[in-house]
Amino acid sequence: MKAVVTVMFKHGVLDPQGRAIGHALGNLGFAGVGEVRAGKVFEIEMAETDPALARQAAERMAGQLLANPVIESFSVDIADHAGGN
Amino acid sequence: MKAVVTVMFKHGVLDPQGRAIGHALGNLGFAGVGEVRAGKVFEIEMAETDPALARQAAERMAGQLLANPVIESFSVDIADHAGGN
Repeated sequence: MKAVVTVMFKHGVLDPQGRAIGHALGNLGFAGVGEVRAGKVFEIEMAETDPALARQAAERMAGQLLANPVIESFSVDIADHAGGN
Repeated sequence: MKAVVTVMFKHGVLDPQGRAIGHALGNLGFAGVGEVRAGKVFEIEMAETDPALARQAAERMAGQLLANPVIESFSVDIADHAGGN
């Protein structure tokens, strides 16, 4: 079973990387680009076979290690191998 | 319209950040953790309202700026605001 944890800055937290990318896209000629937000994604292979338990474990991993809860929020997706991805 | 571009190392490319996170999760007491892969995600607000054109633009952005095609692969998801997310 695979967990995908996505970590983004909370809204209101300054995201200089996203802002720089937005400027760079404009300089490259892309029109109509609004706010750009940059985040991190972690794909975690787990021996756990129960989706609910896998999600619980991934949420604990995110809270303890992958995300800084002061400035970042995270979301967890559980992907079964048989289901693709 | 919002495009979400996910950039991961290609399979076979060494991912030291993912490996370090896997070790750290083991040290924190999480059992049954296999391979961990770390990547980047970019949320891009676009004025474009046609999903197909938004996807094309996001793929060009990823190829030109967001991903290094030598060592990274990317995927694009298009999310309408009305559709949540």
